[in-house]
Amino acid sequence: MPIVTVQVTREGSAPGRNSVTAEEKAAIIKGVSEVLLDVLNKPLESTYVVIEEVDLDNWGWGGLPTVQFRRQRAEAARS
Amino acid sequence: MPIVTVQVTREGSAPGRNSVTAEEKAAIIKGVSEVLLDVLNKPLESTYVVIEEVDLDNWGWGGLPTVQFRRQRAEAARS
Amino acid sequence: MPIVTVQVTREGSAPGRNSVTAEEKAAIIKGVSEVLLDVLNKPLESTYVVIEEVDLDNWGWGGLPTVQFRRQRAEAARS
Amino acid sequence: MPIVTVQVTREGSAPGRNSVTAEEKAAIIKGVSEVLLDVLNKPLESTYVVIEEVDLDNWGWGGLPTVQFRRQRAEAARS
Amino acid sequence: MPIVTVQVTREGSAPGRNSVTAEEKAAIIKGVSEVLLDVLNKPLESTYVVIEEVDLDNWGWGGLPTVQFRRQRAEAARS
Amino acid sequence: MPIVTVQVTREGSAPGRNSVTAEEKAAIIKGVSEVLLDVLNKPLESTYVVIEEVDLDNWGWGGLPTVQFRRQRAEAARS
Repeated sequence: MPIVTVQVTREGSAPGRNSVTAEEKAAIIKGVSEVLLDVLNKPLESTYVVIEEVDLDNWGWGGLPTVQFRRQRAEAARS
Repeated sequence: MPIVTVQVTREGSAPGRNSVTAEEKAAIIKGVSEVLLDVLNKPLESTYVVIEEVDLDNWGWGGLPTVQFRRQRAEAARS
Repeated sequence: MPIVTVQVTREGSAPGRNSVTAEEKAAIIKGVSEVLLDVLNKPLESTYVVIEEVDLDNWGWGGLPTVQFRRQRAEAARS
Repeated sequence: MPIVTVQVTREGSAPGRNSVTAEEKAAIIKGVSEVLLDVLNKPLESTYVVIEEVDLDNWGWGGLPTVQFRRQRAEAARS
Repeated sequence: MPIVTVQVTREGSAPGRNSVTAEEKAAIIKGVSEVLLDVLNKPLESTYVVIEEVDLDNWGWGGLPTVQFRRQRAEAARS
Repeated sequence: MPIVTVQVTREGSAPGRNSVTAEEKAAIIKGVSEVLLDVLNKPLESTYVVIEEVDLDNWGWGGLPTVQFRRQRAEAARS
């Protein structure tokens, strides 16, 4: 009876989207549940999956809010 | 000084509601805090309770989003 | 289908014990599961409870490891 | 590669605010990331920080929703 | 930059084992990281996976410690 | 009344150590509690800090157990 928690930033995976779509969430749920079935033989109906979308302002990386850290890395890559 | 985290789907417990009510949240907080007082003798004021409501799309069960899994189970029960 | 996570310090609730007993864990599981049945009408078999025991060194309170904070408070209460 | 999760109530730190500001979030991210750099020598770019703001109704303390518990304590302090 | 937390009971997936093996852990890490690459296009190196093994005594289901709940269900299935 | 959870790998920060020391844990607790005091004006005694040490086998990065991922990166850096 596994519990899988998936934390991702709230943003779109393609231009014009600003969050994870319902189809993508369903694919994540299916995918990770099948990993636990395949690897540990856990029945699908015993696995709970919780997806947490985190606003970009609330996710830090490199000591900075994510958007600033990505910009810094992109600038470093160009120079 | 316990911390109790309660994760539930964001939906109503009766027709016409679409989320957990403030009264229900207060009852959960009271109930679980008293469990820790009764069982482990933890003073009420040392227990934090955090309730996390999770959108139905974001909760997976049986390899599916919850709403689809419930429908599948209801259909299986009828047949 | 709630998930309840209970974090407590790893210590005994009576002299001569140094951890939560199996009976106490069972009472916590029963108690919090019944709260969710009573308040939100969640069937017992849909609730998962996870108990996490945290070493005293790993739990901070008042900016200090718990044992030091408790000693500081006890001394303040005496003076 | 630490992960730091910071849970706080969703409320302002000064009159006229009702949530944590983007500047305060950035300062929290910077501060806790630097603690892990200073104490454990973890490079900033290997630390993720996730800030979770919790509605006041969803945070319990003293067996009560936070707002009620604070009021109770304030009244006790006055008498 | 997702974080995936996988909580499972500490027990073997085959007779003679009493915990998840290092190979199984590696397969879980690979599997869930690839789900996030495939579905959300998240680079493998931006995903952290944390596996938490929970002692059977510390996992509750159906209002009971897991071992008791499984026994109860097995008995119900036989009768 | 913040809760700060710090997850780090269980390993030493210097040769000859294989875990985080009690002194390092106390410094982390002090440091992150002071960040919340400084930034959000949260009193030290209202902050709980929980440190979770995660075995290296149980932490994945880059789709691999951490030790393998670090080795792969070190080899890539040399070539």
